[in-house]
Amino acid sequence: MAKCRVCRGPAVIDLPRHNAHFCAEHLQQLCRRQVEQAIADHAMLERGDRILVAVSGGKDSLAVWDLLVELGYRADGLYLGLGIGDYSDDSGRYARDFADVRGLHLRTVDLREDHGYDVPTAARATGRVPCSACGLSKRHLFDAAAREGGYDVVVTGHNLDDEAAVLLGNTLRWDVDYLARQLPCLPATDGFPRKVKPLVRLTERETAAWCIVRGIDYQVEECPMAAGNKHLRYKATLNALEAASPGTKAAFYLGFLERMGPLLEGRSAAAVDGLRACARCGAPTTGEVCAFCRLVDVAAAHEPVPVEHLARRPRRAAGTASH
Amino acid sequence: MAKCRVCRGPAVIDLPRHNAHFCAEHLQQLCRRQVEQAIADHAMLERGDRILVAVSGGKDSLAVWDLLVELGYRADGLYLGLGIGDYSDDSGRYARDFADVRGLHLRTVDLREDHGYDVPTAARATGRVPCSACGLSKRHLFDAAAREGGYDVVVTGHNLDDEAAVLLGNTLRWDVDYLARQLPCLPATDGFPRKVKPLVRLTERETAAWCIVRGIDYQVEECPMAAGNKHLRYKATLNALEAASPGTKAAFYLGFLERMGPLLEGRSAAAVDGLRACARCGAPTTGEVCAFCRLVDVAAAHEPVPVEHLARRPRRAAGTASH
Repeated sequence: MAKCRVCRGPAVIDLPRHNAHFCAEHLQQLCRRQVEQAIADHAMLERGDRILVAVSGGKDSLAVWDLLVELGYRADGLYLGLGIGDYSDDSGRYARDFADVRGLHLRTVDLREDHGYDVPTAARATGRVPCSACGLSKRHLFDAAAREGGYDVVVTGHNLDDEAAVLLGNTLRWDVDYLARQLPCLPATDGFPRKVKPLVRLTERETAAWCIVRGIDYQVEECPMAAGNKHLRYKATLNALEAASPGTKAAFYLGFLERMGPLLEGRSAAAVDGLRACARCGAPTTGEVCAFCRLVDVAAAHEPVPVEHLARRPRRAAGTASH
Repeated sequence: MAKCRVCRGPAVIDLPRHNAHFCAEHLQQLCRRQVEQAIADHAMLERGDRILVAVSGGKDSLAVWDLLVELGYRADGLYLGLGIGDYSDDSGRYARDFADVRGLHLRTVDLREDHGYDVPTAARATGRVPCSACGLSKRHLFDAAAREGGYDVVVTGHNLDDEAAVLLGNTLRWDVDYLARQLPCLPATDGFPRKVKPLVRLTERETAAWCIVRGIDYQVEECPMAAGNKHLRYKATLNALEAASPGTKAAFYLGFLERMGPLLEGRSAAAVDGLRACARCGAPTTGEVCAFCRLVDVAAAHEPVPVEHLARRPRRAAGTASH
């Protein structure tokens, strides 16, 4: 039987990129240390920060919330009801159960109740791919909630697999603007909160294992609207390279941060200069009315589109950059 | 039946990245134009240049030689006998036949006859992977032949698939030094000839098709020593991405040249400053004796190793940078 590298006790997981097995206790130690290192390396958080965690009900967002609380940070959650049928109903339940059991504060926003639309309807009404309509909604509403709630920082559960897949997509197109912004800590700018990704040094297999050994129930389904998108294809590509050569994924993403990040500094075209307040909602925007308010205009006027009308058809993927 | 995009005649090939079929004549036109564009975009060749083509007997090196002659350039070939068993014997025959039929001048160097070793023996004697020992030998001997023969430029047959696969490897490691040197035209420097890759805008499927419609017989086998190396794995990775989204490979490589090349200028650590003449052979080197002469010392003193002792075992791949 395989033994834990640290204590020689019975192992629960094999991590080829660390060339070692770990027991439940030392897997948790590894996860905590990787998160602490990510936070320290990129100056993500300070002790007194008021933190808002973007909670989806999946393994990554629940793991990052749990880890931050473990590490002594003060963190509330925000769950967005996206209106993606049963998938959203189940996801919301996992998020609420997690918060309830731990006595944590979970805020919720429901797209349909609070803004008159849902993701499938927004996708159909605007002709955007669902991941694009969803990403725009999430960025806007997390930013707005942070602003309104007086939070210093929005935390998301993006893990190493996510970031490496986005990096592969941006690299295959050599999208210098997106590459320059693909950082695990984006500082606050005019009206935008700081945004940080404390799980960038952990793979999704590791965050899933964290949840299992911590007894956290989470949504295990993939979003039905994401099926067949490029992001999942790039993940599969990197998984195949990783299987042939363990460590490839971490070297790719962390090497980018270390060696390309400095070369790309200042290359982002993010137009912070011409920003003003959206005439409708007050969010920073370059236009008269922000992209979110324009989305709401079109989507809320459209008759509701059931998720079954959009899900599981192969489609082109959306961009995934932040800000 | 599929029709040629240009003349509506019967097509011989489907090129999804161009979203079109082509007949034999217009496939050739496409190949010529892509080569002319690569030469022009990167200032690879001038009309009066004395050109030495690195000829392996495979489709790419014979295609590039044929294309350059077609386009009116004056180009000789150089074939290196690498001593890789039947593979090398057959390759040499294809190279000689090609030159003989066209009345072109093919120089030859044989590692065993002229330098007392072959690639399998060099790999075993030095503990290098074969692709590494082979690459070092080729770079040195092409440079030396160009210097001695008064050639302005060495042409290699690296195609889009080759360059994209090398780029993927360099990118997965974010090897900034290699990335900065991965250019289709490396200018001449102290004692090194200019090196150019006119096929970088053509895929290997296109160069194979060129050979077929031109009646060029070539070595179709992969080198037995390359089996399982990372370069072939990266090619397969890119082929899978290309199949899902035609144009990915060209966008990756050509986008790199266009948008990252300028950002990486001057980032190559190539130590041209401390170069002096090798005490043994006179080639430029940073040491007392150049890496090639040191390889020869060790390899020529070793008893010959038959190719069968080394081939077809999975192994880690070698780097593939030039200069």
